[in-house]
Amino acid sequence: MSTFDLRDWSSCQLDLVEQALEKWVSVDATTDLDHHAPADLMESMRYAVLDGGKRLRPLLVMAAFEAVCSGLVADYLPEEERIDETARRGAPDPFLKGEKPTEAALRAACAVELIHAYSLVHDDMPCMDNDVLRRGKPTVHVKFGQASALLAGDALQALAFELLTPDSATLAPARQANLCRLLARAAGCAGMAGGQAIDLASVGLKLTELQLSEMHRLKTGALLQASVMMGAACGDTTLQVGQALQDYGAAIGLAFQVVDDILDVTADSATLGKTAGKDADQNKPTYVSLLGLARAGAYAQELLAQAQAALRRSALSDTRALHGLANMVVNRSN
Amino acid sequence: MSTFDLRDWSSCQLDLVEQALEKWVSVDATTDLDHHAPADLMESMRYAVLDGGKRLRPLLVMAAFEAVCSGLVADYLPEEERIDETARRGAPDPFLKGEKPTEAALRAACAVELIHAYSLVHDDMPCMDNDVLRRGKPTVHVKFGQASALLAGDALQALAFELLTPDSATLAPARQANLCRLLARAAGCAGMAGGQAIDLASVGLKLTELQLSEMHRLKTGALLQASVMMGAACGDTTLQVGQALQDYGAAIGLAFQVVDDILDVTADSATLGKTAGKDADQNKPTYVSLLGLARAGAYAQELLAQAQAALRRSALSDTRALHGLANMVVNRSN
Repeated sequence: MSTFDLRDWSSCQLDLVEQALEKWVSVDATTDLDHHAPADLMESMRYAVLDGGKRLRPLLVMAAFEAVCSGLVADYLPEEERIDETARRGAPDPFLKGEKPTEAALRAACAVELIHAYSLVHDDMPCMDNDVLRRGKPTVHVKFGQASALLAGDALQALAFELLTPDSATLAPARQANLCRLLARAAGCAGMAGGQAIDLASVGLKLTELQLSEMHRLKTGALLQASVMMGAACGDTTLQVGQALQDYGAAIGLAFQVVDDILDVTADSATLGKTAGKDADQNKPTYVSLLGLARAGAYAQELLAQAQAALRRSALSDTRALHGLANMVVNRSN
Repeated sequence: MSTFDLRDWSSCQLDLVEQALEKWVSVDATTDLDHHAPADLMESMRYAVLDGGKRLRPLLVMAAFEAVCSGLVADYLPEEERIDETARRGAPDPFLKGEKPTEAALRAACAVELIHAYSLVHDDMPCMDNDVLRRGKPTVHVKFGQASALLAGDALQALAFELLTPDSATLAPARQANLCRLLARAAGCAGMAGGQAIDLASVGLKLTELQLSEMHRLKTGALLQASVMMGAACGDTTLQVGQALQDYGAAIGLAFQVVDDILDVTADSATLGKTAGKDADQNKPTYVSLLGLARAGAYAQELLAQAQAALRRSALSDTRALHGLANMVVNRSN
């Protein structure tokens, strides 16, 4: 198997994702008969989404999609043949006639990113974290005003579900329903929004490690895990693969937050592209405040090992991108 | 055909809708393996949704569902036989094995109401309309704080899509996808959120009648129209029926807003359950400021006639509830 370079792979995927976001978060894309999104609203939505962010969630969607399309180890083919085979068939087997599998995955990738973007817009608002800097730029409410930020976030959430339910035969209805289900649960009150609510209620409190991990499992973990599951849902998976990828998603979801807490203490604002040290300033419970820096770091490595073990259990033949992303999540510097 | 009493019909439907909301907007309903919605968040969501509101959108869903299930005039049966027939078959024809048609319609009805409820929560916030009274109670941000109101609204939007995508075989996947598509478009940037954005940008401006109707077509009309279309989508419709119901939805959607503008001037806060006279105070363009009271009233009646004509075009055998609701929308006092 040829050497896998995560940077090359990511760069290639990100080109696709950025192009797709550019196309789908636009006035033209929302043209439906005579319905148009107002230009002002779209401008704030685009500001919130385009040109920024690590795009970790879209990358997880694409990596999981690739992994399930690579098939199980039992079906393993040398890479050259596998590529030829994919080219010959045009699309992996489990797709309905007319479905465009890569577009399906891109829709899922963009939908997850829109949910992430909306959550940042609302989180940054004065009544929540009151943050003025995000991805090195003024936050949406600073740039466009609070009312516009509120609406832009609301509209981004709806747009995520629009992307998952195209009119055409691009995406089989059952896949559309499945993707909407995964995303709605991950975004909602028993997922991301629920985690935010716990976070909000926890300022100044001393949480146990269990309470802290529960908060983060919802706040950040649910959407990261859903990214993996949605990528897999764009292909076809066995129960075994689904469970293994779910475990992988849970491990990196939590690892992401542990590392976030570490970076909030160890990195500066310029590197992070957002205000560093805010958690401590706001007296928020973090893994660092609970475990200390050294043990928090060790915990992140332990979660990485769990993610890697889950990928081995999946028995998928090509999980290099998922391996690479897990590694990146834990060993990133911003 | 026996006399149809809208009040009896509505009361019966509202019992079902309120029970369903009570059941689905709860911590128990969101239990998914080990995921739970935090109790605080759920409390604010329930406060926003339960025990209040005219439930016009759910009633439109149920009325449209009943109408399409009643079949075309061509299939007309005397009412006694029709009822027997429905009872015998257990469910109208177009449903997949295992589908529960009334539950499907109830899910759609509740989903639309959740979107409506979230929009009210966010609209009432200080950065938007800054309203303290809604349905005769303190608004959500007054009761729970702004951060909680923001999150409750966000979570209600996600929950709407959760309701439309149940795990079970309750709802055929194609119907789930269709309902999500209709709701996402109506709620998003080319629908309700888009209309809010135009509204926000229009304060103090002098709009033409065309600009005003465009704003309201998005802000209020899109979701009312979607309610009708979603109800129809829970049954089975021909193209002709779909188009006629779409026209009906457009007419009552606009009529609703024209009457809202009239009531803002003619009714008092106690009758409305919200602050009267706000539009004029905030220098917002309305149908009354544009047309004057008398012409606005005549326009509402004209839209009612359009809605009634659309129902006749549908050739559905039982549109009594849809007729009654159109009448109620135009001739209501709050």
